[in-house]
Amino acid sequence: MQVNERPSGFEVVEAGRVILRHSAAAPCVFVGRGEPEVQMLRGNFKIADYVTERVALRAATITRQGEAVSIALAASAADAAVLVLTIGADSIGLEATDPSLNRLWIRTVAEAGEHVWGGGEQMSYFDMRGRRFPLWTSEPGVGRDKTKLITLQADLGGAGGDYFNTNYPQPTYVSSRLYALHVDTTAYSVFDFRHDGFHEIEVWEIPARIEVWARDTFVEIVGVLSERFGRQPQLPAWVLEGAIVGLKQGAESFDRLQNFLDADVAVAGLWCEDWVGLRITSFGKRLFWDWKWNPKRYPNLDTQIGELRAKGIRFLGYVNPYLAVDGSFYELAKAKGYLALTLDGAGPYIVDFGEFDCGVVDFTIPEACDWFEEEIIGRQMLDFGLSGWMADFGEYLPTDVKLANGVDGMLMHNAWPTLWAEVNARAVAKRGMTGEALFFLRAGFTGVQAHCPLLWAGDQCVDFSRHDGIGTVICGALSSGLLGNAYHHSDIGGYTSLFGNVRTAELLMRWSEMAAFTPVMRSHEGNRPDENLQLDGDPQVLAHFARMTRVFRHLAPYVAGLSAEAAATGLPLQRPMFLHFQDDPKTYADQTQYLYGADLLVAPVIREGKTDREVYLPAGADWVNVWTGDRQAGGVEIAVVAELGYPPVFYREGSPDAALFAALGQI
Amino acid sequence: MQVNERPSGFEVVEAGRVILRHSAAAPCVFVGRGEPEVQMLRGNFKIADYVTERVALRAATITRQGEAVSIALAASAADAAVLVLTIGADSIGLEATDPSLNRLWIRTVAEAGEHVWGGGEQMSYFDMRGRRFPLWTSEPGVGRDKTKLITLQADLGGAGGDYFNTNYPQPTYVSSRLYALHVDTTAYSVFDFRHDGFHEIEVWEIPARIEVWARDTFVEIVGVLSERFGRQPQLPAWVLEGAIVGLKQGAESFDRLQNFLDADVAVAGLWCEDWVGLRITSFGKRLFWDWKWNPKRYPNLDTQIGELRAKGIRFLGYVNPYLAVDGSFYELAKAKGYLALTLDGAGPYIVDFGEFDCGVVDFTIPEACDWFEEEIIGRQMLDFGLSGWMADFGEYLPTDVKLANGVDGMLMHNAWPTLWAEVNARAVAKRGMTGEALFFLRAGFTGVQAHCPLLWAGDQCVDFSRHDGIGTVICGALSSGLLGNAYHHSDIGGYTSLFGNVRTAELLMRWSEMAAFTPVMRSHEGNRPDENLQLDGDPQVLAHFARMTRVFRHLAPYVAGLSAEAAATGLPLQRPMFLHFQDDPKTYADQTQYLYGADLLVAPVIREGKTDREVYLPAGADWVNVWTGDRQAGGVEIAVVAELGYPPVFYREGSPDAALFAALGQI
Repeated sequence: MQVNERPSGFEVVEAGRVILRHSAAAPCVFVGRGEPEVQMLRGNFKIADYVTERVALRAATITRQGEAVSIALAASAADAAVLVLTIGADSIGLEATDPSLNRLWIRTVAEAGEHVWGGGEQMSYFDMRGRRFPLWTSEPGVGRDKTKLITLQADLGGAGGDYFNTNYPQPTYVSSRLYALHVDTTAYSVFDFRHDGFHEIEVWEIPARIEVWARDTFVEIVGVLSERFGRQPQLPAWVLEGAIVGLKQGAESFDRLQNFLDADVAVAGLWCEDWVGLRITSFGKRLFWDWKWNPKRYPNLDTQIGELRAKGIRFLGYVNPYLAVDGSFYELAKAKGYLALTLDGAGPYIVDFGEFDCGVVDFTIPEACDWFEEEIIGRQMLDFGLSGWMADFGEYLPTDVKLANGVDGMLMHNAWPTLWAEVNARAVAKRGMTGEALFFLRAGFTGVQAHCPLLWAGDQCVDFSRHDGIGTVICGALSSGLLGNAYHHSDIGGYTSLFGNVRTAELLMRWSEMAAFTPVMRSHEGNRPDENLQLDGDPQVLAHFARMTRVFRHLAPYVAGLSAEAAATGLPLQRPMFLHFQDDPKTYADQTQYLYGADLLVAPVIREGKTDREVYLPAGADWVNVWTGDRQAGGVEIAVVAELGYPPVFYREGSPDAALFAALGQI
Repeated sequence: MQVNERPSGFEVVEAGRVILRHSAAAPCVFVGRGEPEVQMLRGNFKIADYVTERVALRAATITRQGEAVSIALAASAADAAVLVLTIGADSIGLEATDPSLNRLWIRTVAEAGEHVWGGGEQMSYFDMRGRRFPLWTSEPGVGRDKTKLITLQADLGGAGGDYFNTNYPQPTYVSSRLYALHVDTTAYSVFDFRHDGFHEIEVWEIPARIEVWARDTFVEIVGVLSERFGRQPQLPAWVLEGAIVGLKQGAESFDRLQNFLDADVAVAGLWCEDWVGLRITSFGKRLFWDWKWNPKRYPNLDTQIGELRAKGIRFLGYVNPYLAVDGSFYELAKAKGYLALTLDGAGPYIVDFGEFDCGVVDFTIPEACDWFEEEIIGRQMLDFGLSGWMADFGEYLPTDVKLANGVDGMLMHNAWPTLWAEVNARAVAKRGMTGEALFFLRAGFTGVQAHCPLLWAGDQCVDFSRHDGIGTVICGALSSGLLGNAYHHSDIGGYTSLFGNVRTAELLMRWSEMAAFTPVMRSHEGNRPDENLQLDGDPQVLAHFARMTRVFRHLAPYVAGLSAEAAATGLPLQRPMFLHFQDDPKTYADQTQYLYGADLLVAPVIREGKTDREVYLPAGADWVNVWTGDRQAGGVEIAVVAELGYPPVFYREGSPDAALFAALGQI
């Protein structure tokens, strides 16, 4: 980056993009002090900050020493500098001379018409311009829309959430000005894109550095981000053979699986999260958080896994980083000193997970990680025959916790999901099963890309709602994909059924259709299976699902190619249209359709009661409807008929996989 | 006040009370800049502030010139001073040398165990310590408790409110350290009492001054505040003769009044707010906001008022400061240029009052005030025979309005209720009817005391709820009374019935009992009369009400004496116990019981389904139960039986009115 001195101040420029613009009248950096107040209730946070000081740093002194440029910033020319920026090739280093400063606000240049994407996995708004995004891993909330009763009902328990709440935040954005910016921090931070002339980044520490990458194309930007944050192994081949059917009815799950096979469902795996046993709470059936086979609920699981495998079907389970106080591992971990402690060090920190209590394994202790990797994931799960699992949670690290590494919970909270992913990845690697065993996380933060082979979109409501329904999954895939998370999928049918909100057949079918055009097709019975329609509870729904699993399987060669491309380039499988149509500005704003690889355009039906939808076909290509064969030149929005089972999907004419796509209509 | 220099800074001390304490390490003044964002929906405000700078003023330079002491404050010793404090006898003047400063935070000294009261009319918390109170006149909200569904349901329309929302805020507090502090501002301000060592006052301007009064007793403090803010005329004698019965059934109201008279209700007045006609909205029956007799709804009102008067019963009506666009006065006011304008001056500012639109009379135009006083209140109301009215609203002045005096809506919004009270007071004075005609406001702000002869507690929910039910009325009376509002009352039975929440017989009876021990006993049919029980809808309720009106009438000589005392001293009729029991610390925290004058202790039953309650009897007196004659020495909390009709009421043994009180048991 270069620093250009201006009569009134300076500009920091990366490859022609002005990133910072400073003058005494319009300073771009503010520092100060804040006193945070944090309340957590079951992964939902109320966070307030008492900002006692926020000082504009109006006076800048620029020093050049060879290539190196540093900028010393002070409140006024009369005052001593309190912050020094060091401008490097791809980053801006920050150093405070006053250690009592614990807040930074830095304004980057914003332009009219600019779009900004990223922020981790955002569920409501792909383009973040015009809104404010606190970045703090948490429950995403139920409803996530303060204008809807369901959100307010959930808010009575503190669980309603808002548009910015996400399991996976990350202080990184990509600008339509063709650059990406990342703040190297795990502190609470806020990206505020509400202003006309600037984006304001707030950080609850003075971060060590801010990284900036400018490239000519979005494809290159995604590539550089995926190098920076880490790439995933390729998808296991078995995953592409069909759906992973989620059932949690104990031993009866195996009997029910036969319903699916009889209906000609392509089945890659059976996923029984209740393999650890159940606990009944008012929220619904929950799992018993003691990570090993529960022979009471699954009497013959040890032999059944092998029998299933012989039929070409994998078995998947469930784990998370907490240990129920009434389980067998808790006392063990406590005795070894592997649990996070209360601030006074008196004993394990106990977290309320909703009618049951758990300890938190302290992943800042290498021996605790080893133990979890070897004794739990290794011995109890991989050795037992699991081919994959949901690696749930990671967002609940309390801030008033004492960790072995001595770092404040306010700084470790956001770091936790990545540590959790790493434990899973190392456990798999220790058995040599990387790229073969598949686990999936909802939680994330910077660097989770290097360890998590697959994201799942968390717990949607079982509906079509704007901020917590089926459509949010697309937003999650696109935003996380842009930051180097190549693989994304969701619970078919959604998860959260509360306040009388239950699944419809239409929802299950629309969700199945969408999932067929994602890297992993997995169903979930939801939090209240008995009150909700299941895939095998309605012959029409099951037949529809079966066909969509065959569509999914049919695409396996194409998806395997995308997976190889992801490993080589970092490109996600589900892509915003502008990744490949950078010159078509109409592709910048949409978050309801996506490219699946470079050659498929997918526009899922995410509105209730609709049998058609508008689809924008990017300019510069001709597009062929996979179901009808109709051809259409790009650059137009068209209305597309979309009966159940036939979501609008187009392939790019001239694609090397055209024949494969054209054959979809025959399934 | 005096300024004491300390090695590290200074203290500002008023009669031994340290008010400000400053050092470079712990500065007591911060200044800065903010950009407010204000949204109003039907009197409910969403207000956010983007504080771009908040600078601690650490460096103080003290200058003495004879008696005068000034303190120049700067960010650091190297910087120029930006704010000068001028320490006067009873006030601290503030002057900013930088006119772009628009935010002030000033910290006053707080002590452990200190209580703070005031803040205008507070409905949830009498003692404000431990909480934060924005001071901005608005709708108080429905439910006012974010942990209750009714509030969240109302919040879907932006109308739920919170504990600090009030029709009548005022930037004044009284400390248990025996001093009062007032900020001379109409700007948005916040009293933040959440901190241990300081109270933080935030003001969205640099106010001209902060006034401080220290006295030896709370009685003296109330006296000085009532001198500062103004005193009310004595209550009209007719008001003490019985209840003001609120009916709004058009001409049938007169027939229904006979039910009350037949049941031996002592009636002082008939209040028909619908004398102006009705408008039906989804909220309920509302009034037609065109301020004159509606002969269609009340065909013979012109003669009926006189007939009623001949029976010793007054007639009361209703008015507010807005003019419905479809009424007769709107076009008149518009033609004369008496309406507030949109910011661009293009035309009248139209306010949505919930399914109908109104113009706002611009009370910064003297001629507009004259017109409203003479043509509306004078001619249409007083000359027509009204003896009183509800002077409703005053909280809805938009902030993006253009007023004739050129002052920003952000500064005029809080000033509006007082201007509105003044219009009413002047109109009454012009007819020589001060102390004879009785109007009542719910809205208020600094100085409303001088113009408003009677507050009413606004629109409670028709229930026993903690933050919007019957008990909030006591909190409102005590907080406003301490700031010099001697007269307070409420709608018997509450007002707001929404979401299926309706009045019970118990509620009506408990509210009647409480109202008998307040200066004015007035009933209201509520927003949805047809869906709710009315006083004459149940013989038991009516008989109970009748007896309570006779209790009220029986107390007239005592209350008339209190009214004379209020005029002489500023003491409110309903008083926190500590006003007369300053040495008993147990009297400081309670907000559910009060002294009515010096000699009656009233502890209304404000919990549902209870037939007893705990009552604290202040130490230093002996107390006699007015119903049973039981005698008890003070200094103890006792359980008191409280069947319907017999709320716990005690008189002070030795009171000159002991015989009057003792006779209450015979009514």
